Amino acid sequence: MTLDVVSSYPVERFLLAFAIILIASKVFGEIAERIKQPAVLGELVAGMIIGGSVLALVPSIAGQPGYETFHLLAEIGVAILLFEIGLETNLSDLLRLGATSCLVAVVGVVVPFFLGFISVMAFERYGLLGEINPIFTTVIAITVGATLTATSVGITARVLSDINRLQTEEARIILGAAVIDDIVGLIILGIVSGLIATTKEGLDTGISLANIGFVTLKAFGFLVIAILIGNFASVKLFNLIEKMKVRGVLLLSALSFALIFAVLADLVGLAPIVGAFAAGLVLAKTNQFKLIEDRLKPVSDVFTPIFFIMVGAAVDVRVFNPFNTANLPILLIAIVLFIAAVLGKFVSGWTVFKKGISKAVIGIGMIPRGEVGLIFAQMGLVSGVFDSRLFSAVTVMVMLTTFIAPPLLKFTFADEESTAGEIDLKTP
Amino acid sequence: MTLDVVSSYPVERFLLAFAIILIASKVFGEIAERIKQPAVLGELVAGMIIGGSVLALVPSIAGQPGYETFHLLAEIGVAILLFEIGLETNLSDLLRLGATSCLVAVVGVVVPFFLGFISVMAFERYGLLGEINPIFTTVIAITVGATLTATSVGITARVLSDINRLQTEEARIILGAAVIDDIVGLIILGIVSGLIATTKEGLDTGISLANIGFVTLKAFGFLVIAILIGNFASVKLFNLIEKMKVRGVLLLSALSFALIFAVLADLVGLAPIVGAFAAGLVLAKTNQFKLIEDRLKPVSDVFTPIFFIMVGAAVDVRVFNPFNTANLPILLIAIVLFIAAVLGKFVSGWTVFKKGISKAVIGIGMIPRGEVGLIFAQMGLVSGVFDSRLFSAVTVMVMLTTFIAPPLLKFTFADEESTAGEIDLKTP
Repeated sequence: MTLDVVSSYPVERFLLAFAIILIASKVFGEIAERIKQPAVLGELVAGMIIGGSVLALVPSIAGQPGYETFHLLAEIGVAILLFEIGLETNLSDLLRLGATSCLVAVVGVVVPFFLGFISVMAFERYGLLGEINPIFTTVIAITVGATLTATSVGITARVLSDINRLQTEEARIILGAAVIDDIVGLIILGIVSGLIATTKEGLDTGISLANIGFVTLKAFGFLVIAILIGNFASVKLFNLIEKMKVRGVLLLSALSFALIFAVLADLVGLAPIVGAFAAGLVLAKTNQFKLIEDRLKPVSDVFTPIFFIMVGAAVDVRVFNPFNTANLPILLIAIVLFIAAVLGKFVSGWTVFKKGISKAVIGIGMIPRGEVGLIFAQMGLVSGVFDSRLFSAVTVMVMLTTFIAPPLLKFTFADEESTAGEIDLKTP
Repeated sequence: MTLDVVSSYPVERFLLAFAIILIASKVFGEIAERIKQPAVLGELVAGMIIGGSVLALVPSIAGQPGYETFHLLAEIGVAILLFEIGLETNLSDLLRLGATSCLVAVVGVVVPFFLGFISVMAFERYGLLGEINPIFTTVIAITVGATLTATSVGITARVLSDINRLQTEEARIILGAAVIDDIVGLIILGIVSGLIATTKEGLDTGISLANIGFVTLKAFGFLVIAILIGNFASVKLFNLIEKMKVRGVLLLSALSFALIFAVLADLVGLAPIVGAFAAGLVLAKTNQFKLIEDRLKPVSDVFTPIFFIMVGAAVDVRVFNPFNTANLPILLIAIVLFIAAVLGKFVSGWTVFKKGISKAVIGIGMIPRGEVGLIFAQMGLVSGVFDSRLFSAVTVMVMLTTFIAPPLLKFTFADEESTAGEIDLKTP
């Protein structure tokens, strides 16, 4: 029966788009692997092709019928990915490398912010920004700087998993830095959104040191408490679950555990994926974790491509057309910001002085900005700080960082393989 | 980062609702199994409790934020379930029992239709319908009759799977009958919607024998061609897929295959789940089918509970309150229609005269109406043929058939176990 009276996005279109996403992700993933690239790069390209600006086979712009559903599925997808990666990560290794990760994160936030800030000042001087109130330039510069700060760990984690390098020291430093980076990003988000409100509306929205301190405390507090209580409770919980007989109970309990951690992370202002990652870390210590990993794999195979397809689908390829002269200043701004974005994160790798660890791998691993940068950009656009040209430029910068990281990381890792090695060979 | 600028249903609420659905389905599924009931009954009850009319933890009414997403996920869930069941079903067994299934389907459509029709005529005589144009009564009676016809195979298939009886002759007859039933339902849908349009708007929308013949031909044609071509193409396709190296390719190919069959079924006017079932039948013949089943299981564990939770969540429990006198005529109409619905399908089992096959199991297996009956009811409401009271009564009837089938089927199967036996013991 074909009647569908309850939905603005008909079921059959949804099923078709779902099938197209799955097929495209695997076909392009396979092509990417054949040309010795990580599968995730293929998925990003697949998304670009089936997305709104080329074939328009999947909804890729907010407000389109079905967009919300695929957006939400993408969020579940990346949460499951980080949960899976958490399961494969040893918490003590992560903590052991905590100080190193922290330094990488801080440098990787401060330097890109600074480079972004001075780039905007330069754009203004050379008239690239058009007519704007000079007092306002500082706010624009700060907001652009903010869009350059937050690493999106999803891409890097997928690449590391694709090329089978999750168990290296580098991977652990990157994962740790990405979590800390999210906390630093949170602080910046608080400052920037307060600043925008103050400038635009002349309000004092209370950006105080006390406020910032509270936000930071809440985020760190969540991680510490979640992992401590989680470690204690998960063992008891999963012993209980072992006694249940109904089909699929272990998988669904583990998945619910991850989802609830994601929601809790969101409650304290962190990205849901940070919560999902923490849930993985906790469950990695239960004795069912191998079984969970095994059951989770097919579910992850279905959900995670949706995320990377949707990231690719959001790319408006028309912006890259250099024959449209209106694109030229946008492309110029985008390229400068892109260089700032790459350099800013790349140097963060050079804060690591441990022997046998590739500085380049860490620097490159921190490059992708993904959806977090886009959230900042969207905030800039909605609040009126960015005009549509600057928004496009920032979006292009985010895309480029996302697309360049997978091949670069694969290339660097292959190059450094002889020196970096696997951690399991080095720890007792 | 907590900013969500692109979605009317925030990500964290979606993740939370998803977790609640998974947890509730397993907790209530476990309780149901402990009291010797199929897990699906627990899921239906769980849906009722977390649904809009009790706890309102998940969106359960069309138009609520997030409803569309869960509705679409539920549709994928039931499609995956029928795909899974198709994989476990032997096509030749199904064809061997084709004539029997056909008879069950036709009787199970004609008798409930007739009983529903005369019930409405009786309601009118006793003034239960309120003030309506007498000429219009016939249209109401036909529409109510139509809502009583279509078996929703999802519930029965889940129960058969829960109690481990999918490989019985009875299960095959029911599955075959449900597929044919869907084709018959399609014909009735065509007639009824044409009739409603003619009566309401005085138009001749062309209900002709030729039209009905064409619709029927298209549906049967799809099934025959899909299974024939599918059988041929799937072997070649999956040999090709075996050569691909990228992670998860077998699962995603199989799933896409099912989704595309579902979309094709929809194109010829059949329920998408009929297409998914056909896809399962086809892939059951490939040599990777065991592996597909194995990988599909966790995915099915995540998606299918959403369907049953959403069916339960759609129940407005307030209608059952007998202390609200406004509910009394609704409940009376509902109970009469429910009896007509149960009797009408129950007798269809008595058309089977094979030795060792339980007539009662088949009759009961055909009882649940589920979402297809609700589609008819919704059509009646939107077109103005049903007022809200009659719509509520029909909805209650559908719910009751859905909730009564699992325990009844479990009970009857246990009772007949000694005579019915497993098919594998009887065929050479």
